Amino acid sequence: MQPAIEPVRDYFLSLQDDICSSLEAVDAEVGFLRESLRTPGGGFAHPRVLENGSHLEKAAVQFSHSIGTSLPPAATERNPHLAGLGFQATSISLIVHPRNPYAPTTHMNLRFFLIEADDPVWYFGGGFDLTPYYGFVEDARHWHEQARLASGDFHQRMKTDCDKYFYLSHREECRGVGGIFFDDWTENGFEASFDLTRSVGDHFLPAYQPILERRIGMPYGDRERNWQRLRRGRYVEFNLAIDRGTRYGIQSGRRIESVLASMPPTASWRYDCQPEEGSEEARLLAEFLPPRDWLAEP
Amino acid sequence: MQPAIEPVRDYFLSLQDDICSSLEAVDAEVGFLRESLRTPGGGFAHPRVLENGSHLEKAAVQFSHSIGTSLPPAATERNPHLAGLGFQATSISLIVHPRNPYAPTTHMNLRFFLIEADDPVWYFGGGFDLTPYYGFVEDARHWHEQARLASGDFHQRMKTDCDKYFYLSHREECRGVGGIFFDDWTENGFEASFDLTRSVGDHFLPAYQPILERRIGMPYGDRERNWQRLRRGRYVEFNLAIDRGTRYGIQSGRRIESVLASMPPTASWRYDCQPEEGSEEARLLAEFLPPRDWLAEP
Repeated sequence: MQPAIEPVRDYFLSLQDDICSSLEAVDAEVGFLRESLRTPGGGFAHPRVLENGSHLEKAAVQFSHSIGTSLPPAATERNPHLAGLGFQATSISLIVHPRNPYAPTTHMNLRFFLIEADDPVWYFGGGFDLTPYYGFVEDARHWHEQARLASGDFHQRMKTDCDKYFYLSHREECRGVGGIFFDDWTENGFEASFDLTRSVGDHFLPAYQPILERRIGMPYGDRERNWQRLRRGRYVEFNLAIDRGTRYGIQSGRRIESVLASMPPTASWRYDCQPEEGSEEARLLAEFLPPRDWLAEP
Repeated sequence: MQPAIEPVRDYFLSLQDDICSSLEAVDAEVGFLRESLRTPGGGFAHPRVLENGSHLEKAAVQFSHSIGTSLPPAATERNPHLAGLGFQATSISLIVHPRNPYAPTTHMNLRFFLIEADDPVWYFGGGFDLTPYYGFVEDARHWHEQARLASGDFHQRMKTDCDKYFYLSHREECRGVGGIFFDDWTENGFEASFDLTRSVGDHFLPAYQPILERRIGMPYGDRERNWQRLRRGRYVEFNLAIDRGTRYGIQSGRRIESVLASMPPTASWRYDCQPEEGSEEARLLAEFLPPRDWLAEP
């Protein structure tokens, strides 16, 4: 099978539909705003954003197919010889910020780059990761079990790469409990790499939905919301100061509302704020954020 | 007069005291948290942060004197030949986030770098800028009048540089109404450059205080607070994704709570949110953010 954009694009489009429908079932009274945009050079984008649901404070599930004449530096950091070439790229990128602080934020991204040439250059990338505000062992285990099912033999490597990528070095802190991450991926050729990408996509809902469902009904108050806002501040720090995807989006002049649809609805910063010793908030930092083998026998 | 760190450091320390006292007079019931920290290599820092005042939602006025063995890349972008040398640096950096959305946020920074060598390398930098959430012509004029007094013959150049620096290219939007900005400054030698730096520092309170005082009593409601939070989101975008000072702080491994003390207490993001046509919010974007000569005759 020759590397081609169409089958990947069609899979991403159908995955976007499935995920939006499932999320809409969680928040029956609000729906995704569905847009369809043409982008320069013949590409198109389907941003879908849901805001202010009773359970989903914000969710963005975005599809794009870009056709470009020159790869920007942020997209080719690891492949500098590709800089300046024309390309096609298709991606699905999602983020869910539930309102309930006991329900974790999640992020998934799948992407495919292709330079059609005599000797085509292509790679897949993506993964999914989970960012809880309060830690639940049961949730972290379920998440990583699904991540292992999604990634098979590559699980250990993709988990380690996820822990490495979603790391705020200035805080010496991981963004969440991780998941799986892959980039510049061509392992075993196009067909196998596409299979892996599909497997990651297909495991997202089974990984996230049960966690979301068991947490969104839990009672919470100001204390939990305040903590959630502070932790969302860390999310903002990661996205704006570190994340390669966001930097690529800003550098390449992509539609900024799409690039920043991942931002949390609210965030806050307090000076030198440390959770009380022994609290559930302190437990998140001490027991859940440091990288850990969640699938080891207890 | 030979370039020396001590007189600059002492001026910054005394300016920090003056500004903190003036701000504390605005919010009598809360005070600055005053800390004194030793930093590696014999430097020290005096972070001062005030939070949750009735008028000042957050204010940070920070002094630091750093002694380093190797200048990090972000500090030497314009002087790459300096990378890797040992240095001393002293700075005062402040930000004020008033609670009332009619009162503007302000930022001031003054800094001095010195490489003591046979032929010492040194430069000053800094400036002050104003970020209103609602526009008032009277405030913008007063601010720029003081900026002109502070910078004298250099005003036009320093104003233009300010408009250029505090620009969110991904939004095609200035951060606020500007002010003055200077960097890598050695104009007319050490003594003249130090005089200019002092003049900028001494004009900060006369520039900001009258504006703060006439706005903090204005009535406001949820609409204004929501708009303020959205605009503070832009502030966060600038600081984390663009600002050289913050990038330097993150890269150099400086104490992160000091680096990020500039972050607003709260911020929010909404997808593709545009103010209503003809509203005061739309007027800010149309009439106040585009660079303008505020001192031209009306």
